Amino acid sequence: MCQMKQKMLNIETNGRGTFDISHDIQRIVEESKLHTGLCHLFLKHTSASLILCENADPTVRVDLENFMARIAPDGDPSYLHDMEGADDMPAHIRTILTQNSLTLPISNGRCALGTWQGIYLWEHRTIGHVRKLVITLQD
Amino acid sequence: MCQMKQKMLNIETNGRGTFDISHDIQRIVEESKLHTGLCHLFLKHTSASLILCENADPTVRVDLENFMARIAPDGDPSYLHDMEGADDMPAHIRTILTQNSLTLPISNGRCALGTWQGIYLWEHRTIGHVRKLVITLQD
Amino acid sequence: MCQMKQKMLNIETNGRGTFDISHDIQRIVEESKLHTGLCHLFLKHTSASLILCENADPTVRVDLENFMARIAPDGDPSYLHDMEGADDMPAHIRTILTQNSLTLPISNGRCALGTWQGIYLWEHRTIGHVRKLVITLQD
Repeated sequence: MCQMKQKMLNIETNGRGTFDISHDIQRIVEESKLHTGLCHLFLKHTSASLILCENADPTVRVDLENFMARIAPDGDPSYLHDMEGADDMPAHIRTILTQNSLTLPISNGRCALGTWQGIYLWEHRTIGHVRKLVITLQD
Repeated sequence: MCQMKQKMLNIETNGRGTFDISHDIQRIVEESKLHTGLCHLFLKHTSASLILCENADPTVRVDLENFMARIAPDGDPSYLHDMEGADDMPAHIRTILTQNSLTLPISNGRCALGTWQGIYLWEHRTIGHVRKLVITLQD
Repeated sequence: MCQMKQKMLNIETNGRGTFDISHDIQRIVEESKLHTGLCHLFLKHTSASLILCENADPTVRVDLENFMARIAPDGDPSYLHDMEGADDMPAHIRTILTQNSLTLPISNGRCALGTWQGIYLWEHRTIGHVRKLVITLQD
């Protein structure tokens, strides 16, 4: 009761795409021995997101990629900010349209996710990065 | 001081649209007797959202529906994921573009919402569902 | 340990655009003397957002404005809600597509932001407003 625990996790991505971190997060929550509380996840980046997404059919995440590619295309000539390439500004737009932070309830010692909810890190840059995640747990 | 309370709420929707849950949430916060703290709402679904929306003019929410229908149209032939019908993938996109979780401040024993802020559950599927909401309150 | 502190902050904007509030928030966190915890920011409005955005190149935020202007144009004749002018409904759409709340980890007495993350209030209305922010800090 009334504990606040913080942990850092580095997640290595190999380029644009979604990475299932559900098991990593559930393991950290279980190890914390907290029973009822909240789990806050925070990415220290502006070009990658955290999403809760349908976890049964991987084509959902393909469709999400295609959706983002359509509304915020790489290399759009209207972008002023393109220092790091054609995917630079789209990565910021995708992050702003989604979230780089999630707060999840902890119930009975686990993240109380719905049956079809998976926790994904969404890398928006075309090359891989090491993404820093801050996990704050409280009960 | 330093309490963590959790409650489940089932919300029945009758298909796509917004459902005002402000009064339900305020009642639960008031019953908790917490004075200063946070109220965390979490939907255990990937095809419905929680939004804070202007609560005076219902046409705002009509325009939001129309906006979503325009950028993520039902039955778009490019979707790979359509197992549950034409509204399946759009429901996931709408959820990713909004949020399925909200954290609200509690001040003086109530959610400290602005004058024009209402809490809405936004059902994105065309048929009704029972949506499970986890409410975590702390002070 | 186990403190919950709340503070209000009024932020005056001079019309549409982004306003860097990182220093204000870091100062409030430092003054709270909390070491490890969470900082929750909540805007009591439906036509302004809080975003974590790249803080090095201001053209990122110009591109974000242009992106929003393209997907939710001012004065679109399809909007039903235009009581307060051409920017009224777009301001609500922009808010729904982003967030009006942020939860940030506190580590070593400061918001644990990434190197390139700045906290911005994004005013979506074309004229200036006084925006009310509720800051809730806990450890």
